[in-house]
Amino acid sequence: MDEFGLINKIQQLENVNHSSTKVGIGDDAAVFTPTIGKDIVTCVDTLTEGVHFTRETMKPSDIGYKALAVNISDIAAMGAIPVYYLVTIAVPKEWTDDEILDIYEGMQQLARNENVQLIGGDSVTSQKGLYLSVTVIGEVDSGKARLRSHAEVGDVVFVTGDLGGSAAGLHQLLEGENVEEHWKAAHQKPAMHTALAYEIARLPWRIALNDISDGLASESWELAESSHVQIELLEEKIPLSAGLVERFGQQKAIEMALTGGEDFQLLGTVARDNWQPLQTIAKEIGERVTKIGTVIHKGEGVFMTSQDQTTLLSRDGYKHG
Amino acid sequence: MDEFGLINKIQQLENVNHSSTKVGIGDDAAVFTPTIGKDIVTCVDTLTEGVHFTRETMKPSDIGYKALAVNISDIAAMGAIPVYYLVTIAVPKEWTDDEILDIYEGMQQLARNENVQLIGGDSVTSQKGLYLSVTVIGEVDSGKARLRSHAEVGDVVFVTGDLGGSAAGLHQLLEGENVEEHWKAAHQKPAMHTALAYEIARLPWRIALNDISDGLASESWELAESSHVQIELLEEKIPLSAGLVERFGQQKAIEMALTGGEDFQLLGTVARDNWQPLQTIAKEIGERVTKIGTVIHKGEGVFMTSQDQTTLLSRDGYKHG
Repeated sequence: MDEFGLINKIQQLENVNHSSTKVGIGDDAAVFTPTIGKDIVTCVDTLTEGVHFTRETMKPSDIGYKALAVNISDIAAMGAIPVYYLVTIAVPKEWTDDEILDIYEGMQQLARNENVQLIGGDSVTSQKGLYLSVTVIGEVDSGKARLRSHAEVGDVVFVTGDLGGSAAGLHQLLEGENVEEHWKAAHQKPAMHTALAYEIARLPWRIALNDISDGLASESWELAESSHVQIELLEEKIPLSAGLVERFGQQKAIEMALTGGEDFQLLGTVARDNWQPLQTIAKEIGERVTKIGTVIHKGEGVFMTSQDQTTLLSRDGYKHG
Repeated sequence: MDEFGLINKIQQLENVNHSSTKVGIGDDAAVFTPTIGKDIVTCVDTLTEGVHFTRETMKPSDIGYKALAVNISDIAAMGAIPVYYLVTIAVPKEWTDDEILDIYEGMQQLARNENVQLIGGDSVTSQKGLYLSVTVIGEVDSGKARLRSHAEVGDVVFVTGDLGGSAAGLHQLLEGENVEEHWKAAHQKPAMHTALAYEIARLPWRIALNDISDGLASESWELAESSHVQIELLEEKIPLSAGLVERFGQQKAIEMALTGGEDFQLLGTVARDNWQPLQTIAKEIGERVTKIGTVIHKGEGVFMTSQDQTTLLSRDGYKHG
């Protein structure tokens, strides 16, 4: 199939159609009317064969799903709603047309769930390995984007859901073990937190948000550095994926949460007085938020307290004892 | 250099800074405030090593320049102004950090010329071949985007500048010939037509526009199909790059204009009464527009008339005699 034939097939997949879209796929560029009073939020992220997935660990539709998911997660981490997306795919000759269409169908499945419209893209040939780069464009009430730099001393530090599941799923897939379904799902089809992001965007409070793509340690450091604060995490409070401690032991389980990427949970901070209301709001939409620590001082740093012992936590999850 | 180190270096390059930008590089996503009364225009296009360039035909800064240029050209072809861009780069191990920085510097040079701000991106490793994918976001007065579907019967068909220069430059580079400077420039650093696009965007007239990335024949077909019209091109009127006929002969020169991609001139149609004023406007900003044909009928098709003989012109430039 040539590029033209592929584009035709992709255009036949069911697509969201926003009334704000004036030109979708098919001209030099897409055109849409932004909503008055909203800011535009945009990001791009890429999955590459051999680095982020292999043909053994992910099937084509899951690769598509995840390439869009990692970007929707970034948009949600700004407290914004994803609206449009564009795709660049570089395809090596070993991949069949049907596999490529499955990748797009995987993206479109998630896009339909999240009400995101495909409005453009590009496909090229790759000499080796498949590349899938997705740009997502979203909207947030003007001035309401939830930045990493919003944390203040005294804030509660929280995470959504639980951690370590994606790393456990990847481990089992690579080792050829029987894979626990909830870990496989965490790795291949991570859940999105756009509903919570939407609720958070509507709140009048100051909230800092970040999504956990590179592990809790690294993302906590990003929050701490951007906000110029010191964060203390409580090891015993970190919500670990069900069965993680039983299967891997306490130490390895915590390590997976601290350094295992791709959980795509949200990490945030909120003023102490707003913590209880936030829990209630999250519960109402079926999300769980867990307090895992506190913003303790001005400065820059991340500390971890375990059984009354506090140590500096490095970006790569190492505890300096 | 790791990704973090590279991002640091890239951030030190001089960047445009729009007052509408609330968050640039460095959070989960970029945030900007769209201008009230404007539509957003966006596209993505990718250059790949071995397909769109080789290390012999393009130096790193030119690769960067061109990857941004092909997208700015698409934005201009909508009558829109480019404002922001995001970059995905996949780098194989043969490329040095300095070469990668040169690619970014090439992009930033053009971005500064065109007042476009780098607001995000992603860098990954490539198993083989370099990939450079750029998303550009621009603005146009609401409802004023210049679409391919705007052509009507009786319109003058025009192009900016001249054609075939990029194909000639590529030919000479590949053959190892002494390369004419203006052909080399046409291939490696094609001129942008954003100033004309800006003027066109302000006009109250109906205008169809397309950019010539895949040759005049293919782009004329796109206009004809989108507008449901038949177009007649006059072979003798097609503006060929200086020296093209002398070097390659009439037949090959026309073929280069019809099928040689990457000239990045604009192809458009405008009502007959507005043709003279458009020429004047173009001249005032140092652009040349040439009438190369007419929209002759409803339907779909592209015809070429040469020495009183009219033949159907196929998408790939073949004249059905």
